Amino acid sequence: MRKLYVIGIGAGDPDQVTMQAVKAMRQVEVFFVIGKGDDKSELVDVRTAILTEHMDRPYRVVEITDPPRDRTPADYQGVVEDWHDRRSALLEAAFAEAEGIGGILVWGDPSLYDSTLRMIERVLERGAEKFDYEVIPGITSAQALAARHRMVLHRIGEPVHITTGRRLRETGLRESALVMLDGECSFTEVPGDDVHIWWGAYLGMPDETLIEGPLRAVEARIVEERARLRAAKGWIMDIYLLRRDRPGNGSVRPVSVGGGR
Amino acid sequence: MRKLYVIGIGAGDPDQVTMQAVKAMRQVEVFFVIGKGDDKSELVDVRTAILTEHMDRPYRVVEITDPPRDRTPADYQGVVEDWHDRRSALLEAAFAEAEGIGGILVWGDPSLYDSTLRMIERVLERGAEKFDYEVIPGITSAQALAARHRMVLHRIGEPVHITTGRRLRETGLRESALVMLDGECSFTEVPGDDVHIWWGAYLGMPDETLIEGPLRAVEARIVEERARLRAAKGWIMDIYLLRRDRPGNGSVRPVSVGGGR
Ligand SMILES: C[S@@+](CC[C@H](N)C(=O)[O-])C[C@H]1O[C@@H](n2cnc3c(N)ncnc32)[C@H](O)[C@@H]1O
Ligand SMILES: C[S@@+](CC[C@H](N)C(=O)[O-])C[C@H]1O[C@@H](n2cnc3c(N)ncnc32)[C@H](O)[C@@H]1O
Repeated sequence: MRKLYVIGIGAGDPDQVTMQAVKAMRQVEVFFVIGKGDDKSELVDVRTAILTEHMDRPYRVVEITDPPRDRTPADYQGVVEDWHDRRSALLEAAFAEAEGIGGILVWGDPSLYDSTLRMIERVLERGAEKFDYEVIPGITSAQALAARHRMVLHRIGEPVHITTGRRLRETGLRESALVMLDGECSFTEVPGDDVHIWWGAYLGMPDETLIEGPLRAVEARIVEERARLRAAKGWIMDIYLLRRDRPGNGSVRPVSVGGGR
Repeated sequence: MRKLYVIGIGAGDPDQVTMQAVKAMRQVEVFFVIGKGDDKSELVDVRTAILTEHMDRPYRVVEITDPPRDRTPADYQGVVEDWHDRRSALLEAAFAEAEGIGGILVWGDPSLYDSTLRMIERVLERGAEKFDYEVIPGITSAQALAARHRMVLHRIGEPVHITTGRRLRETGLRESALVMLDGECSFTEVPGDDVHIWWGAYLGMPDETLIEGPLRAVEARIVEERARLRAAKGWIMDIYLLRRDRPGNGSVRPVSVGGGR
């Protein structure tokens, strides 16, 4: 393999792909698809839609099935590290057989809660495969959430804090947090009557659902809606922004709910 | 005006525009360009390149010149609020004269350190102009930085913290911070021998410059290079990630410097 492109493809809407991503994809001869083997078909559909629409010549696809992983470990970091080791061994084997220019399509942006770049660094550290690689940024689910709620991620001059459900439970909410990877509705454990939530599921996809309002007023509705959607479809992806009111701050908007697009 | 599109166009590389942005742009009949009147020609060039390449029919451009603003106020928030009020009055006047579908192109993503959405909300709150608006996300400079350094913005399971130079000076560095809007090389004031920096200027543009390494080893080089570039071009835009080492953490990469692309 002469070169590898790691290409962010956006977080759900195939039109969120950039021109830069399209140009990189068109140079790729072999795409590596890393998955669980039983991937949600709609997520695969987004990838397929992008390739079908934009590729202008034949290409190969090599599927790499993820090794299994303990999802509720005590030693979270250790288990993740070990899992990355096993994944990168598989990736190395796939790279060894490839020729020409390779590509990996990454959900959202490769810099945010995605392990592809770490795996590639591991493959390179092992030293058996040598290649140059380039990263193409993609729209993240955080930006998709902000766009659909037409909001800015921070108040004037304040920071943006992006974190996981697990961390939110461990450290609590300071001023504001954008929360990803939360399978457990951790927002219900954030105390206080002064918190506002902007929630979104399946952003950019046909079942996109948005709920926004004072946390205490809408949390039950989100929990219910999330369970209903998840049961109906068999899977869910959601993300949300929490923000504590400041005294005298009138900038939070009134409750509104939108289902579908 | 029937509808307004607020369109993120990426942070420097015209190819970072998304298909969704192109499709929205093609519906626009009148673009509102908000600027200082003396805008850096290269920033204007990116916008022009995007419109020239992707627009497939005639469109109008209405220029709105920003009111002046106190750049070093004691009451930062108050001055910014007042400035936004004056800007939104100008925007309202421009909207009042427009017909059909409007568009505003926003540098990077509209959800990150950009005032366009706040101004539009103000115009709507004033009540004189009524219109629907939609936000199209764009690649941020944070993602452009991460892609060019081929890095993930956080360590496994850790949060991402995006902040301004001003805030970094006020609150110091906890674990890691992605710093934007820093005209004063605030990284030089972060204490400690255990901090790593990934810095980038003019990302995605012809003069793109990257420097990376242990903060204490490369900070003087960044300060010097930044001053040189700024003097040569008359302006600079830069952004960086700072991260404190953890004991026993071998994941920081060795010093490397790249100039140009
Ligand atoms: C493993 S992370 C990958 C993030 C991705 N790299 C990005 O840039 O958005 C997966 C998490 O992203 C969020 N996510 C990704 N796509 C989403 C979508 N279309 N709608 C809602 N949340 C999404 C969810 O919080 C999910 O748990
Ligand atoms: C007013 S903010 C706008 C940010 C924009 N909305 C975004 O999504 O990136 C301007 C700051 O963004 C950063 N920035 C924007 N474009 C950049 C580029 N091409 N290279 C380096 N930094 C950039 C700089 O820190 C600059 O001070």
